[in-house]
Amino acid sequence: MKPSIPKGTRDFGPVEMARRNYIFSTIRSVFALYGFSQIETPAMENLSTLMGKYGEEGDKLLFKILNSGDFLRGVDEKLIEERDALHLTSKICEKGLRYDLTVPFARFVVQHRNELQMPFKRFQIQPVWRADRPQKGRYREFYQCDADVVGSDSLVNEIELLQLVDEVFARLGVNIIIKLNNRKVLSGIAEFIGAPDKLIDITVAIDKIDKIGLENVCGELGERGLDCDQIERLKPVIAISGTTAERLDQLESTLAASETAMQGIAELREVISGVEALGLKAILELDVSLARGLNYYTGTIIEVKARDVEIGSITGGGRYDNLTGVFGMPGLSGVGISFGADRIYDVLNALDLYPSEAASGTQVMFVNFGKAETAAAMKMLKQMREAGIRGEIYPDCSKMKKQMGRADALSIPFVAIVGETEMAEGKLTLKNMATGEQQLLTPAEAIEVIGKGNAR
Amino acid sequence: MKPSIPKGTRDFGPVEMARRNYIFSTIRSVFALYGFSQIETPAMENLSTLMGKYGEEGDKLLFKILNSGDFLRGVDEKLIEERDALHLTSKICEKGLRYDLTVPFARFVVQHRNELQMPFKRFQIQPVWRADRPQKGRYREFYQCDADVVGSDSLVNEIELLQLVDEVFARLGVNIIIKLNNRKVLSGIAEFIGAPDKLIDITVAIDKIDKIGLENVCGELGERGLDCDQIERLKPVIAISGTTAERLDQLESTLAASETAMQGIAELREVISGVEALGLKAILELDVSLARGLNYYTGTIIEVKARDVEIGSITGGGRYDNLTGVFGMPGLSGVGISFGADRIYDVLNALDLYPSEAASGTQVMFVNFGKAETAAAMKMLKQMREAGIRGEIYPDCSKMKKQMGRADALSIPFVAIVGETEMAEGKLTLKNMATGEQQLLTPAEAIEVIGKGNAR
Repeated sequence: MKPSIPKGTRDFGPVEMARRNYIFSTIRSVFALYGFSQIETPAMENLSTLMGKYGEEGDKLLFKILNSGDFLRGVDEKLIEERDALHLTSKICEKGLRYDLTVPFARFVVQHRNELQMPFKRFQIQPVWRADRPQKGRYREFYQCDADVVGSDSLVNEIELLQLVDEVFARLGVNIIIKLNNRKVLSGIAEFIGAPDKLIDITVAIDKIDKIGLENVCGELGERGLDCDQIERLKPVIAISGTTAERLDQLESTLAASETAMQGIAELREVISGVEALGLKAILELDVSLARGLNYYTGTIIEVKARDVEIGSITGGGRYDNLTGVFGMPGLSGVGISFGADRIYDVLNALDLYPSEAASGTQVMFVNFGKAETAAAMKMLKQMREAGIRGEIYPDCSKMKKQMGRADALSIPFVAIVGETEMAEGKLTLKNMATGEQQLLTPAEAIEVIGKGNAR
Repeated sequence: MKPSIPKGTRDFGPVEMARRNYIFSTIRSVFALYGFSQIETPAMENLSTLMGKYGEEGDKLLFKILNSGDFLRGVDEKLIEERDALHLTSKICEKGLRYDLTVPFARFVVQHRNELQMPFKRFQIQPVWRADRPQKGRYREFYQCDADVVGSDSLVNEIELLQLVDEVFARLGVNIIIKLNNRKVLSGIAEFIGAPDKLIDITVAIDKIDKIGLENVCGELGERGLDCDQIERLKPVIAISGTTAERLDQLESTLAASETAMQGIAELREVISGVEALGLKAILELDVSLARGLNYYTGTIIEVKARDVEIGSITGGGRYDNLTGVFGMPGLSGVGISFGADRIYDVLNALDLYPSEAASGTQVMFVNFGKAETAAAMKMLKQMREAGIRGEIYPDCSKMKKQMGRADALSIPFVAIVGETEMAEGKLTLKNMATGEQQLLTPAEAIEVIGKGNAR
């Protein structure tokens, strides 16, 4: 029987790990640069913490952990007799795996409220688990990478987060568009056309304007239950165009009657002018169709797309008003951003954007020529490590071809040879595996050459 | 209802995280320095991979994940009618949380055998889960930190691992004793006294010699079923003393009749002389009573204790002969070491060994004086971040006392003040929170001061 892992999960080998670490450590340093502190929460949460937070579908997608021991003891006989799997679950499972980082974060804030300094700026990089049907690019275990500020209404936080996003992708070398919207503008539009319950239909329709044209969008809106008058009123909103400043002006005059919309536009103006004053490398774009997590966000909505790869959203976030209300601590506003590590990994792979340092593998391998030579080699290796060189010695005195084959297979840039001659002189022969060039060097000289040359 | 987390699990706040990260990143860099590559495996493994690997007790301590959907469908009616929790488990759960890093590593090696370069040197730092009864210092979720070399018999690997252990604790500033033994010596002793099945009893008894004296040890051995003759033969082994070299000599002459013991002693000599030639900061001690994971280790056995804190073993490891046999790939020898992150954390806390950099928190906080000042401050903050300074701006224009209180509570060493005067000059007032000293500086000057001074 060949061993395997559960579907939708992955092993990460050395090369993938080095690349993922490069992404995570880039994000982590920028988080720190912006004053965010890391926290970690347990993989398992009480089901009472998780259930009901992700909708009915989400409850089903939670991985639940069977109680230890005689899990059927004390369970209502009727549930067992009726084979009522759904209700039995809550009796035989008390814990579940975290589904995202937001609910555990909310739980953390409430549980530790007295120890936290508000505004609380936290980041968290941990795996989450969902019993989703696995498919290309969708896994049952994947990492989330979130930063949030809670306890402050100020739009300074939005400006800071946009700068942070800009800096992360600049460091990763990914050209991006940051799309921006505000829930209040969306609510204002729905209010303005007299269809406050049709928010999602409206945004879906607006989103299609470029693809299917105004005529078809209006047709679709009709199918979704908007009347002709409502569609007429919506037309100028759908048709806004031009630069971000022009779009804001058009929205402002069209939606003047909605106070909510005006507030949203004012917020957008403040955020946009704030980041523009500081200079952004990314393209910033107002997108009135942007509505991610509509039920959750109450102000700014942010989405990031890569400009050079077709892959959907690679980062998203926004402002919410009531993170912790469900845990009995109402009125805590916050704004957050979540980096999609798996998609960013795919983007960097597609564009081959990993710097050679991202490999961070072994820099030199000492060949093994037998006992005496190995003892001498290990002393030199020790010296190299003290200088920060990542090195290893082939542990067995195998055939030269086999030993060199390892250095080759692992892309180790240098091989050090300590035979009888070298030993006598206290030197080593350093072979550059890319060029084939060999030099007889002292360990100190070799350290310099290896330190400089990541030949591959 | 105050939210809580499952018993035996922990939240890690910013201060704990910074400290844990310091430990993990120290270990990680040393692993890399010694040529180990990182891998990660999924939190969930198939139960078929995990069951039967940790003994009957271990099977019970596995956290099992309930199958999704109608988990009772197709389950044998008889098991349900009999409320047979034990056998039902395997029908309603296919997956479990990993219990350690060794079994997933073995599974990984077999599954990816064709992609791996032997000897394969991997490290892995991930949480594991055990449904143990939680108690002080024992958690249901904790990190393991393992490095292993598989596919090589050479004792060079042992020497490398001992150096690696030495380097990790030197970097952490912890004085340690490394205790060393060899399973073959233990087997040889048992062989020699004619009680090959009494290995554990013998090691437990030897271990107590310092505490209870030879007389009592022999009494205990009698109770454990050894006869007088066997105890007589064991006495010189129990009584070995002196330096490591002297102990080896005494063992060698006492156990000369056992070939197995002689082989173990030869291995110990090679490992010890190997590390001594390279120089070890730690104290290395031969300990014939050392037997950790006896059923698992087949050669070298390693255990590390802190010299300045009473806390038991903080790192352990050894050589095994058949890591992957259970997955159908026999004869793969390896040697590994596992750092006990939680205990190392406790040791560093007890000795207060965290360097100030381990905090790696925010270095400067800009005060918020309102819109215009904030815009100017954010430009300076941007400049500082470009120079690598970790900084934040108080997002709201709150009372000065409240803002300064935050810097104080978070131990942020510098506060930057940009009021009207400063704005006019393009400067900022930098306050050193430790000394109270204030200076009017250009952003470039402030960068220099902040970069140098981790005042706290």
